[in-house]
Amino acid sequence: MIKVAVLTLSDKGSKGEREDTSGPAIEELIKDIKAEVVSYDIIPDDQDKIEKNLISLCKKADLILTTGGTGVSPRDVTPDATLEVIDYEIPGMAEAMRQESSKKTPRAMISRAVAGVRGETLIINLPGSPKAVKENLTVVLPVLVHAIEKIKGSTQDCACQKD
Amino acid sequence: MIKVAVLTLSDKGSKGEREDTSGPAIEELIKDIKAEVVSYDIIPDDQDKIEKNLISLCKKADLILTTGGTGVSPRDVTPDATLEVIDYEIPGMAEAMRQESSKKTPRAMISRAVAGVRGETLIINLPGSPKAVKENLTVVLPVLVHAIEKIKGSTQDCACQKD
Amino acid sequence: MIKVAVLTLSDKGSKGEREDTSGPAIEELIKDIKAEVVSYDIIPDDQDKIEKNLISLCKKADLILTTGGTGVSPRDVTPDATLEVIDYEIPGMAEAMRQESSKKTPRAMISRAVAGVRGETLIINLPGSPKAVKENLTVVLPVLVHAIEKIKGSTQDCACQKD
Amino acid sequence: MIKVAVLTLSDKGSKGEREDTSGPAIEELIKDIKAEVVSYDIIPDDQDKIEKNLISLCKKADLILTTGGTGVSPRDVTPDATLEVIDYEIPGMAEAMRQESSKKTPRAMISRAVAGVRGETLIINLPGSPKAVKENLTVVLPVLVHAIEKIKGSTQDCACQKD
Amino acid sequence: MIKVAVLTLSDKGSKGEREDTSGPAIEELIKDIKAEVVSYDIIPDDQDKIEKNLISLCKKADLILTTGGTGVSPRDVTPDATLEVIDYEIPGMAEAMRQESSKKTPRAMISRAVAGVRGETLIINLPGSPKAVKENLTVVLPVLVHAIEKIKGSTQDCACQKD
Amino acid sequence: MIKVAVLTLSDKGSKGEREDTSGPAIEELIKDIKAEVVSYDIIPDDQDKIEKNLISLCKKADLILTTGGTGVSPRDVTPDATLEVIDYEIPGMAEAMRQESSKKTPRAMISRAVAGVRGETLIINLPGSPKAVKENLTVVLPVLVHAIEKIKGSTQDCACQKD
Repeated sequence: MIKVAVLTLSDKGSKGEREDTSGPAIEELIKDIKAEVVSYDIIPDDQDKIEKNLISLCKKADLILTTGGTGVSPRDVTPDATLEVIDYEIPGMAEAMRQESSKKTPRAMISRAVAGVRGETLIINLPGSPKAVKENLTVVLPVLVHAIEKIKGSTQDCACQKD
Repeated sequence: MIKVAVLTLSDKGSKGEREDTSGPAIEELIKDIKAEVVSYDIIPDDQDKIEKNLISLCKKADLILTTGGTGVSPRDVTPDATLEVIDYEIPGMAEAMRQESSKKTPRAMISRAVAGVRGETLIINLPGSPKAVKENLTVVLPVLVHAIEKIKGSTQDCACQKD
Repeated sequence: MIKVAVLTLSDKGSKGEREDTSGPAIEELIKDIKAEVVSYDIIPDDQDKIEKNLISLCKKADLILTTGGTGVSPRDVTPDATLEVIDYEIPGMAEAMRQESSKKTPRAMISRAVAGVRGETLIINLPGSPKAVKENLTVVLPVLVHAIEKIKGSTQDCACQKD
Repeated sequence: MIKVAVLTLSDKGSKGEREDTSGPAIEELIKDIKAEVVSYDIIPDDQDKIEKNLISLCKKADLILTTGGTGVSPRDVTPDATLEVIDYEIPGMAEAMRQESSKKTPRAMISRAVAGVRGETLIINLPGSPKAVKENLTVVLPVLVHAIEKIKGSTQDCACQKD
Repeated sequence: MIKVAVLTLSDKGSKGEREDTSGPAIEELIKDIKAEVVSYDIIPDDQDKIEKNLISLCKKADLILTTGGTGVSPRDVTPDATLEVIDYEIPGMAEAMRQESSKKTPRAMISRAVAGVRGETLIINLPGSPKAVKENLTVVLPVLVHAIEKIKGSTQDCACQKD
Repeated sequence: MIKVAVLTLSDKGSKGEREDTSGPAIEELIKDIKAEVVSYDIIPDDQDKIEKNLISLCKKADLILTTGGTGVSPRDVTPDATLEVIDYEIPGMAEAMRQESSKKTPRAMISRAVAGVRGETLIINLPGSPKAVKENLTVVLPVLVHAIEKIKGSTQDCACQKD
């Protein structure tokens, strides 16, 4: 079972001023694969806080799915925070999500969503609306289990792990 | 009204040895959206000069559209200069332009055109020929006003701006 | 006259819970050179806010002096924000400040203060305490006017500037 | 005639424990364009070794085609090594290959293959299986001669070359 | 008590062809501060392996001290691996070590040793010889406890940590 | 014998409007070590041209010594070009040169000179004046032969080299 952390980025959501429907949408969709949600947090659109949460979540999750903050408005800093903490990008995931979304609206091209790996954890940015979350997550869902199995192979090389 | 700067990159054009038809093509196409051209310059394919012009143009334009210098030949340095000065990329815009152009010619895949943001200014590289300018600009045109409105929201957070 | 912006980074200071004595210390020291302070702000230790303020201040200042947030504790993000917005570093300034401070305390070696240039504006990070501000600013003060004159030479190359 | 270096990345292949069929597949496909294979090596999936081989091969080849090591498993380090040694990326080539492969399998989206230029040499990562090599190489094959002609124009600017 | 991981990089040492005296030298020196050694490994000078070990060790150590592989010879890849995995550098530590070593030999200037932070773990590269290990570690030893206390403050910001 | 390329960066020098005395100063100083000058060129302060020349010179030289363009004025782009083409930095060389020069003048702290390695070639930026060239080169001269011997060891790992 893949351990999944859901992280909703929303200034209003974090203050309790708006109900988060995107986080629950992710939890619902993720049921279709061999995965369990191990944490669910709502934090404000603050690059520094996002980076620190991503770093901490990597210790308990195989997969972090963020929702919100992927655009170009001033409070959209999720991709910037993600790029700072990942060890390498998986550009094809972001390309595939944008390409699928572009069939619905040209505005999909300004999503800066990033997918990448830190340590043995896969981090994928999803947009903010429940509808867009569904559209985008559906694109990558079929390869998640395979991708994480491959990523997690990475400890075999470590002297430290064998101790 | 969006303030647009047009920057043509051309060694021959800058010396007056070749008429620039791509810059005027941009000016014509941009009429379809709520935008006005506030500057139009032709400079040589020199990375250093391009960087300095982009930095200066950011002070007066919401959108900079460059034409020329996006390929892989030795004098093609527009993407390199753009990557040096922007604060972050908007990869989906470049992907969408390449994908559309690829329907016409496989050579579109060697365009290294970049789209990104410096401060509150959106910078988009377009190819050099008037025909390719039209093909590419048409792809991003529908989202330009929306994107710039979002980008310009960014001053609300600044202590300095409120003074 | 060099136009100087002073930016104090302090969670408590920005909420009015602690008086800022470092910002005023900078203003006092800067009187020794041909400079005038054109803005003075106190904002919290938030990477996103710091980046946006630095970007905005570059439009009106030749020199931005920040104080605070240069260490390695969780709220210290000034160097990270500065590295994100500058076009290039001037490593020797940071080295010289650390070397001088190290004569007082070995803890100086964990200051991550950065000096660099965005557009035509020089940005220098200073530590948070008034005493350390004085020690560090004194090191770079003798070269500030010369450095900024050199940096500002940069508009001569711009087609746009000549218009 | 373009000079082509084929570099197979395979732990088992380099020890002689598995026959390399992907390298020969590249050699076969490349016959369709004006190219000759000047070197063919099999080395293990070791980032350090890959970087050093790519750097050395750039001295004798106009085009380096690698096969293997483009995924996300622990031994997949070809894209990381390539990113370290190239001077700039040609993102459209990698996008086009992923897009074509995605028509066959969604797993294509986790290929991290990179295309880019070091000095005057084009480096393109291809996947590991002979079937995927064929699918991907077919996508970029039509533009290779044109791209390399453009890239090699780059010496005209060099004082040193004129000596 | 600070948890310390010692990582010796040595091709010969990892094969048992040479006794490692530098790792034990670190263990001896570290006794002077509030620290305990939680792991000690010897692995070959392989960038990929070093990166994976550093990533894994970050899960159990507050401080990783590496020895070996900091020079410019082909097998010296410790600084490269370290730069790939850290979230930010602490340049003053490396500067201070080089400055002290330079008093003994000018060759100290080609040490590329890096100090930086990944998550909440401080990573410091030390040279390969026991004598140089002593010289260099002595420089940073007085600030290690203070630095790690500051770095570890970083979890206070995490929603996830509070759960 | 180390093969040395001398590259003078000077707009006026390249047009024959000013005699280059710094290049010859390097040639004179280099006689003290086991080295021979294999090329000497004067090119303008153009980032693009500098990058292309450095890339080409790496094919015939073990050591490239540049002079000029290391400051912060608009035409000073040598460090930027060098950072673009090198595979890794040797920060201690630049630190040591700045530290020595700072004993003469505080302006030394705004030198952005870079030292680094591309392939098997060491590139070192020196300032523009003959006096500063001497001061700086004297600092690194004692370690050049040793450093290059180490760097050149790097081919032993290459399958391609053994062919």
